[in-house]
Amino acid sequence: MNFNPLSDTHIKNLRAMVAEDRFSTGESVLELHAKDESHHRPCRPESGIWPVTRDEVARVVKYANDNRLPVTGWGSGSSLEGNPIPVQQGLVLDFTRMNRIVDIRTGDFQADVEPGLVYQDLNEKLRHTGLFFPPDPGARATLGGMIANNASGTRTIYYGSTKDYVLRLSVVLANGEIIELGTRASKTSSGYDLIRLFVGSEGTLGIVVEATVRLAGLPAEFSAAVATFASVEDAGKAVFEIMRNGLHPAALELLGPECVELMNREENLTLAIAPTLFMEFHGSTTGQLAEVLEMAAEICNSLGCRRFEPGVGRAERDRIFKARHALGEMIIRNHPDSNVLVMDVAVPITAYSPLIAAIRGELAGTGLVSYYISHAGNGNVHLNIVGKKGDTRQWELINGIVQRLVTRSLELGGTATGEHGIGLGKRKFMIAEHGSSLQWMKRVKSLFDPNGILNPGKIFP
Amino acid sequence: MNFNPLSDTHIKNLRAMVAEDRFSTGESVLELHAKDESHHRPCRPESGIWPVTRDEVARVVKYANDNRLPVTGWGSGSSLEGNPIPVQQGLVLDFTRMNRIVDIRTGDFQADVEPGLVYQDLNEKLRHTGLFFPPDPGARATLGGMIANNASGTRTIYYGSTKDYVLRLSVVLANGEIIELGTRASKTSSGYDLIRLFVGSEGTLGIVVEATVRLAGLPAEFSAAVATFASVEDAGKAVFEIMRNGLHPAALELLGPECVELMNREENLTLAIAPTLFMEFHGSTTGQLAEVLEMAAEICNSLGCRRFEPGVGRAERDRIFKARHALGEMIIRNHPDSNVLVMDVAVPITAYSPLIAAIRGELAGTGLVSYYISHAGNGNVHLNIVGKKGDTRQWELINGIVQRLVTRSLELGGTATGEHGIGLGKRKFMIAEHGSSLQWMKRVKSLFDPNGILNPGKIFP
Repeated sequence: MNFNPLSDTHIKNLRAMVAEDRFSTGESVLELHAKDESHHRPCRPESGIWPVTRDEVARVVKYANDNRLPVTGWGSGSSLEGNPIPVQQGLVLDFTRMNRIVDIRTGDFQADVEPGLVYQDLNEKLRHTGLFFPPDPGARATLGGMIANNASGTRTIYYGSTKDYVLRLSVVLANGEIIELGTRASKTSSGYDLIRLFVGSEGTLGIVVEATVRLAGLPAEFSAAVATFASVEDAGKAVFEIMRNGLHPAALELLGPECVELMNREENLTLAIAPTLFMEFHGSTTGQLAEVLEMAAEICNSLGCRRFEPGVGRAERDRIFKARHALGEMIIRNHPDSNVLVMDVAVPITAYSPLIAAIRGELAGTGLVSYYISHAGNGNVHLNIVGKKGDTRQWELINGIVQRLVTRSLELGGTATGEHGIGLGKRKFMIAEHGSSLQWMKRVKSLFDPNGILNPGKIFP
Repeated sequence: MNFNPLSDTHIKNLRAMVAEDRFSTGESVLELHAKDESHHRPCRPESGIWPVTRDEVARVVKYANDNRLPVTGWGSGSSLEGNPIPVQQGLVLDFTRMNRIVDIRTGDFQADVEPGLVYQDLNEKLRHTGLFFPPDPGARATLGGMIANNASGTRTIYYGSTKDYVLRLSVVLANGEIIELGTRASKTSSGYDLIRLFVGSEGTLGIVVEATVRLAGLPAEFSAAVATFASVEDAGKAVFEIMRNGLHPAALELLGPECVELMNREENLTLAIAPTLFMEFHGSTTGQLAEVLEMAAEICNSLGCRRFEPGVGRAERDRIFKARHALGEMIIRNHPDSNVLVMDVAVPITAYSPLIAAIRGELAGTGLVSYYISHAGNGNVHLNIVGKKGDTRQWELINGIVQRLVTRSLELGGTATGEHGIGLGKRKFMIAEHGSSLQWMKRVKSLFDPNGILNPGKIFP
């Protein structure tokens, strides 16, 4: 695709489409939108725009399309695969100021939201209704970003991913047209499901300007437990057995000892430094949960669990999950001279142990510093690998390891990304994962965005 | 679209693509594939083909595409909106003989199945594994048909629709290409979600030749209850309160007294003849379920429930649900000189009572015989209206009522079809429901099936 540079005329015209203070080509603005939380190389856009209405978005996108200017949506920049880095420059649409909760309908378990809303802020607002929006990627992600990446997190094993919570979407297409998709009914068989085509499309097919999301009831009761193991392998076996026995954990997280050590240090926790399973169960009675916890203890103990600590209280649970969610940033902070590559793969649960073995095999003898973090109940593994900035040889080693581990995950029936999206880093695996259906994804892209102005350079190799 | 008639040469060529006994132009075969379970006018195809491999399907579809012959997939003919009626004639691909369970992976909670497999047969095979495939439209539907219509049923309120259970699809496209979609990992953010584009597309975008479906664990414990009310309105209020209070029923069905009377008569049940709620709860302990049932009783009693009968045993529950699932056929059988129109709409749960009021208003004084059947927990209402065959005036009246009730459902934020699909009968509501996004559905159709050979005449007005 050939794009045009942002001329003075373009700047004048775009500036006139929004209020004076919501368009900028200032250095700090461009720098702010040049990178996400990933290790990928930054790239500055040519301007930043903060729309506040869908009509503004439509006008700007139409103008960009007519003038072949790249447009990239921006939430909070918390993504981990370079998804919003404007590699072709152009305009960044920053949704920070388009962040209203338009409506909450508690009786229907639904909320209408704007894309710039941060999900924690939605949940804070919902706190007194007994409802919540379950997907929890951890970082202060926006609803728009979560929809773009089909975000998920620690609770996905029980509550599902973002795609399971989107009932309606208002989308601005590349030509500036605004379309409405979906229904407020809790189920439908009416026409093609275009909603789920946009969810997870990383802003390459259209730009979400409003969404109706489904809410869930806060669990009446919860219980949590921490189990430590001699090895990640043993912990992995426990994960498989907990899932196979249908215990329905609301979270089942596996962390390597290096993560636990870091969390203890940074968040003043006193966890045993060992491969550790955090598990949580949601239910309507304490009796039910006590029974489930007992079964989990039995499973863990039969697999050589060193210590099973049940009855973790809500405050302690919150502290652990806060630390868990902060892990990514802690790792970066603790290696100031390095970049951190966050590998994200997912495999069927029977392939979870083989994947651990492959990771162990790849890391053995390399001397690399890495952190094993896993939404284990989903077979979703993150390996955060630390590489010295500018150390070409080390980065070649790291990239080779990631290449082989992603390929291994695909061989095991898995996916190149469980939740971070394709962005920049996983484009090279698209052919291996999707084969000839990739061509159909490209055709769908061309149908909705014939000039390729929407988040160019992403998803497709 | 212009199609060619099936010439003798076509017949010779197509017959050579499958075994001799798996191609037919016989009268009885054509008659068998001329109608589903709906009231829509039958239309015979020109031939029936029973493929047994994906390659056979691909060859036949490619030939049809090259020669502009319509192709319609056929499962068990149990659909209710004319979805598989070959209104442009051509070929019907009957999947009855392509019905293998390819693989069951209990450890991954997954099964690989062919499209002709009947879901009850899958569940029978799974019985000893402790797993099951939850979507239950009731009739002996095939997996292929369920995927095509995004089928759902009595358990959808708890377990979700077919779309929530499809992890992978092998699809034959109109050009004869076979594409593989999805992953065996339980979650993914890799590329566009083309799977959910095919689920619910009623065989108009491609033909599913294999699917990997997710399975669920059979509930350890269940409890059921029957509650009778003075009016459908009161029962509707109870439905809303049960949902609003987050009791998570595994089924919440509301039937009018006319349905109960019929079930009693035909299945030797002894239910009180009144508007009746059947509810079921799944869980892991009896204590938990007893508590939930108590809350449900409280809600129903506070809303003037005449009788709340908890502790319905498994055998009795099975008898009630068997009768419930047989209702559609019972109604047809009991009105031999009539056709039965089955209206299917769904609304947000807060609009459930207003919808009941609208139905009551429309029927008042018409003298029409009708049956109120509802997956009430989903706000999904079926109204089966009986009309004398050939009584033009009565059918005008019925069609007018349906027209207004579907329009009312859309006004209430709902959908023209909760689970039966668009087929033939709901095409006229597509513009009202989808507005300008309908044009994009058409463009997606043209992208995947430029000659329009796949199930022509459906979905689009």
